[in-house]
Amino acid sequence: MSSALGTCFRISTWGESHGGGVGVVIDGCPPNLSLTEEDIQHELDRRRPGQSEIVTPRNEADACEILSGVFEGKTLGTPIAILVRNKDARPASYEEMAVKYRPSHADYTYDAKYGLRNWQGGGRSSARETIGRVAAAAVARKVLDHLAPGIEILAWVSRIQNLEATVDPETVTGETIESNIVRTGDPAAVEPMIDLIKAARGEGNSLGGVVEAVVRGCPAGLGEPVFDKLDAELAKAMMSLPATKGFEVGSGFEGTRLTGVEHNDHFYMEGDKVRTHTNRSGGVQGGISNGEAIIFRVAFKPTATIMTAQPTVSTDHKDTELKGRGRHDACVLPRAVPIVEAMTALVLCDHLLRQRAQCGLSQQTP
Amino acid sequence: MSSALGTCFRISTWGESHGGGVGVVIDGCPPNLSLTEEDIQHELDRRRPGQSEIVTPRNEADACEILSGVFEGKTLGTPIAILVRNKDARPASYEEMAVKYRPSHADYTYDAKYGLRNWQGGGRSSARETIGRVAAAAVARKVLDHLAPGIEILAWVSRIQNLEATVDPETVTGETIESNIVRTGDPAAVEPMIDLIKAARGEGNSLGGVVEAVVRGCPAGLGEPVFDKLDAELAKAMMSLPATKGFEVGSGFEGTRLTGVEHNDHFYMEGDKVRTHTNRSGGVQGGISNGEAIIFRVAFKPTATIMTAQPTVSTDHKDTELKGRGRHDACVLPRAVPIVEAMTALVLCDHLLRQRAQCGLSQQTP
Amino acid sequence: MSSALGTCFRISTWGESHGGGVGVVIDGCPPNLSLTEEDIQHELDRRRPGQSEIVTPRNEADACEILSGVFEGKTLGTPIAILVRNKDARPASYEEMAVKYRPSHADYTYDAKYGLRNWQGGGRSSARETIGRVAAAAVARKVLDHLAPGIEILAWVSRIQNLEATVDPETVTGETIESNIVRTGDPAAVEPMIDLIKAARGEGNSLGGVVEAVVRGCPAGLGEPVFDKLDAELAKAMMSLPATKGFEVGSGFEGTRLTGVEHNDHFYMEGDKVRTHTNRSGGVQGGISNGEAIIFRVAFKPTATIMTAQPTVSTDHKDTELKGRGRHDACVLPRAVPIVEAMTALVLCDHLLRQRAQCGLSQQTP
Amino acid sequence: MSSALGTCFRISTWGESHGGGVGVVIDGCPPNLSLTEEDIQHELDRRRPGQSEIVTPRNEADACEILSGVFEGKTLGTPIAILVRNKDARPASYEEMAVKYRPSHADYTYDAKYGLRNWQGGGRSSARETIGRVAAAAVARKVLDHLAPGIEILAWVSRIQNLEATVDPETVTGETIESNIVRTGDPAAVEPMIDLIKAARGEGNSLGGVVEAVVRGCPAGLGEPVFDKLDAELAKAMMSLPATKGFEVGSGFEGTRLTGVEHNDHFYMEGDKVRTHTNRSGGVQGGISNGEAIIFRVAFKPTATIMTAQPTVSTDHKDTELKGRGRHDACVLPRAVPIVEAMTALVLCDHLLRQRAQCGLSQQTP
Repeated sequence: MSSALGTCFRISTWGESHGGGVGVVIDGCPPNLSLTEEDIQHELDRRRPGQSEIVTPRNEADACEILSGVFEGKTLGTPIAILVRNKDARPASYEEMAVKYRPSHADYTYDAKYGLRNWQGGGRSSARETIGRVAAAAVARKVLDHLAPGIEILAWVSRIQNLEATVDPETVTGETIESNIVRTGDPAAVEPMIDLIKAARGEGNSLGGVVEAVVRGCPAGLGEPVFDKLDAELAKAMMSLPATKGFEVGSGFEGTRLTGVEHNDHFYMEGDKVRTHTNRSGGVQGGISNGEAIIFRVAFKPTATIMTAQPTVSTDHKDTELKGRGRHDACVLPRAVPIVEAMTALVLCDHLLRQRAQCGLSQQTP
Repeated sequence: MSSALGTCFRISTWGESHGGGVGVVIDGCPPNLSLTEEDIQHELDRRRPGQSEIVTPRNEADACEILSGVFEGKTLGTPIAILVRNKDARPASYEEMAVKYRPSHADYTYDAKYGLRNWQGGGRSSARETIGRVAAAAVARKVLDHLAPGIEILAWVSRIQNLEATVDPETVTGETIESNIVRTGDPAAVEPMIDLIKAARGEGNSLGGVVEAVVRGCPAGLGEPVFDKLDAELAKAMMSLPATKGFEVGSGFEGTRLTGVEHNDHFYMEGDKVRTHTNRSGGVQGGISNGEAIIFRVAFKPTATIMTAQPTVSTDHKDTELKGRGRHDACVLPRAVPIVEAMTALVLCDHLLRQRAQCGLSQQTP
Repeated sequence: MSSALGTCFRISTWGESHGGGVGVVIDGCPPNLSLTEEDIQHELDRRRPGQSEIVTPRNEADACEILSGVFEGKTLGTPIAILVRNKDARPASYEEMAVKYRPSHADYTYDAKYGLRNWQGGGRSSARETIGRVAAAAVARKVLDHLAPGIEILAWVSRIQNLEATVDPETVTGETIESNIVRTGDPAAVEPMIDLIKAARGEGNSLGGVVEAVVRGCPAGLGEPVFDKLDAELAKAMMSLPATKGFEVGSGFEGTRLTGVEHNDHFYMEGDKVRTHTNRSGGVQGGISNGEAIIFRVAFKPTATIMTAQPTVSTDHKDTELKGRGRHDACVLPRAVPIVEAMTALVLCDHLLRQRAQCGLSQQTP
Repeated sequence: MSSALGTCFRISTWGESHGGGVGVVIDGCPPNLSLTEEDIQHELDRRRPGQSEIVTPRNEADACEILSGVFEGKTLGTPIAILVRNKDARPASYEEMAVKYRPSHADYTYDAKYGLRNWQGGGRSSARETIGRVAAAAVARKVLDHLAPGIEILAWVSRIQNLEATVDPETVTGETIESNIVRTGDPAAVEPMIDLIKAARGEGNSLGGVVEAVVRGCPAGLGEPVFDKLDAELAKAMMSLPATKGFEVGSGFEGTRLTGVEHNDHFYMEGDKVRTHTNRSGGVQGGISNGEAIIFRVAFKPTATIMTAQPTVSTDHKDTELKGRGRHDACVLPRAVPIVEAMTALVLCDHLLRQRAQCGLSQQTP
């Protein structure tokens, strides 16, 4: 069960970077929703390599095929299987990795866990694995649009290394974000960020940063009260992405510097809707959405693969050194944006169906 | 399924702050382990109210009863049910909350989700719910001690508001932490922290901060490669605790300011053991433990209940105001320390059994 | 995970025959349903020992306590914990069983699995474990009555040893069944069945037989198409009861003697409702309810505990002999009737919520 | 979650009879086991259509492709995805079914559940869905052979309509069963059974019967004590197969005619092994294997598709009639044999890993 997520809308991803391909099986999708390969391809294209000059040049069209669960353009209610073949695989680039552990990669830990690994391109630990997630999320969006129309999920690059963007989560638009190849929400930060990434790549170095995300229009009442709190599930979803090191919701780590008097979000009535004046809760209280914008941030470390020689050990346990090869992003954040959105859609969709199971969907507005 | 956690070592907690009691059912515990109520009580006493002058004065012995699953002092392998009765419940203190939503609490969202709530002491959203977790974790520790002896789990208060403790995760001891009522690992920070908490309480205000935790001696190989990454599961576990706003592992958010060249952990051989010179990974690579210390931090917001009048709305949707009553911690962090340790033990125990299921336990050292 | 059942309406039972008690935690119950201890007690009284002259004389009131999840008479949506204390436990009656394996009981297999067992009254393998199921089912009925009013679940004794009752599943009433202590639906069979049971008991012997059940008024559309077929889930639920040896739905084993021409259920329109002329399908086609009566039968073996000396082996692996002691039913079927109904209610409730999650509840009538 | 099975060895099947193909994702498979497409193909060939003169002539090679989870001939521990393309699909044969419900098929119930269906060849309800199960079971066998060598799983046709085979479950061999196209274990029954099937087919009619199965060499200790009893899980697994109407273990329905004195299995020592003189328990006591042969029987109804006109209704709810078309088995039992074996392997493998998780694997022999 290494590779399944969700309770009512459940996805199982599979596949390695080099091999037959990658994919996903979606179980529990409501029937009778329109779904085409184009719907899925559109999201895959946002995450695919080679899409701009600042991402990895691996040339993968990542063309998807829906193998089951859709008939005459409608979801059947039965499992939807989606396949993306690997095309531009170059296992030869990785031969040295067969016998050496790349620093800060999963090579050593896979060996420690399983006693073997597919060393070609990182195998299952490759970011290619997220293709299945993004494909499934395209389906999850269909469910959200149908059952809770008006939910808007947006993510953007809010910081690269020390270069911070200025973005208002309440008003930023998808158009702004998608209009630049960094996928930041701050037009003024675009060029500096591109320069920063190119400079790092030029040095064989890499950069990390923070992706911020917002869910606007989410109905109140989603999330479970104890373990499966909405923010806990979002935290897990984000921390399950490659290269993530941290998650915070609402006021986050900085909010802990405030006192309770300063931090609390006061309720007030706006017409017949319960609102809060501030949103340090980040749209979630007691693990359950309160109808305000859900806001969270995810820390991505600098890409582990760098084009510089580094000390490491070999699989036969000798000290050695290794210089990165293969094709990699010097900064994963631009491509992480659609993936963060995808994970958000998956979590929300699952919780929407869970809420429908237990409470029905008319409940949300008390 | 609001209240179950774990795949192979699975716990189901239940109970409200005011009502028959709180408890937990543990399913999947290995048989033939010694277990007494004292083992559990010892951990419950570390989290119980009234234990020191800086925590809530609610007077609960939190005495536990093992109802099943143990026979002649040994676990049977069948479910272990543990019950703690509520004693010092004062529902009258909460009557005003029946008709008003406390700011930054779960009152409104429970109503939004379920259409009703137990308003006495927060019901299910009360921190009393964590009793079941702490009790279950005492059992999880028995499993860890038996199957992976040498694992040491420690948490401590690393910051209250802006007051930072200086603690070395590699060397801090449980004795140091438990020797002071704040449960910090820095003796020099004890008195300032106590003063800070008392001052906030004196003003009817509250404080938040950060709890840091370390797992030492964890074998390599625990954690699943995709969704159920060890750090993702820890993130969810911690974010499922009341009042948490953030989680980070290893280098965390600050690590994103480094470049890849600076950030990577280089491997080297220490005798026949694969080690890393630095530990920015925080003991987890690709979601799987690498044998280094697992280090993470959890952000706790300032307690929402403050003894100050605040604007809010009533359940019949009118603007009103509410002043906190009841007995509360002005700063939850000292009592959060054993709870963070408990959640860590639960996650590790589950993953240890999952690892045994799939790979056996001799696998960990490649 | 030995002791949990259900996906959306999930129960976790716990407890041994002798020990603190037995109980259940129900997770996923819809909120705002009326629920009292009396609702549950009514069903527990139908299964409790000592209720008539043909069942075990163990004197247990089996009084239940709702510990959580209900507030002011309404379900909260959070876990409902129910506790029944053991009262008339007589562990001394079982001392010989501590060192000898009772034939056709679970003594040996528990030792083989866990390396130890609670030998007092069979511990977890005792039929007392079903208390938690029956209590949970009383809650499940509330859900069914609310979301799918008109579902009627009835079971009855259809055969004891070779003594067959004549009952029409389409018309039999609960009043008829409950009017006699055997719980058969055939008034003419009552006295012969009672005599048969008494005769067996008089000889220190025991009897088995068949319980038949019907669900009338079940909406079409419940059940999942592949593994979690409605009849597959009913089969598992019934085969998880102590002493069961077989399950069949609709035409069952005898139906395999018909040809396809004879066996098929032809559809026809009755007003605007799709019906079938015959019901060899037993109300389930392709794993999904079709709106006809769901009909199935469960085989219960003769009670393993008999008051006769039998060869067996000791725990130190020597041939020996053992004579049954303790208080037991010479025929479990009268008490099995409410338990079969309970398991049916649990399965239907879970599938109703699963259906609501995926398809909504307006879907059932195409 | 319509299409997933297992806790530790978890499979997710997908696919419809006509469409991109069918397949399975296996999660939780132990690493480092040899696995090739030939291993899987061998089992698929046993279930494929067109293999003999008494099964459906649909011409499908059912060639499988392993898409992930295997590297250089070894399982990686990560999900194994297996794909089988549909080749000889003839949707035109089914056009009439688009607007009419086939009697005793899942056409109507799929519409009732989902509001639409893939009417080509039954879509998801087609027996082609079992390809994924059989493929996964080939992997499960590898796990069993590695962790519990000596387990032998055999199934055979024990009755077709009223024609009963005489087979001793303790001694029947796979060679005997596979030596005839009916897959019965009784050489004397082969020709009469073939004649019976051919006669039915000649009349456009169909037949059902019983498949019996045995597991020899299963260690004691597998199965969970309450809901996930080994026989309950086998019951569910078998009842999840298309066309099944009943399941019984050990003495089954007929055993209920015996008294307890006659029915009980007495223990005795055979060397240092605990054995039973008789095996009415069918190798499972209290839901847990006892080391004796596990014996069970599965009832398969006569194939619903017959080449005869039958009354039915149309999707627009008018009475009409329908004559079977398409290519079908007049008797599914010969092809059901490998599928029953497959489901048995899947259940045992999952329980073996569950047992390893909780108790370790040295526990089985007390």
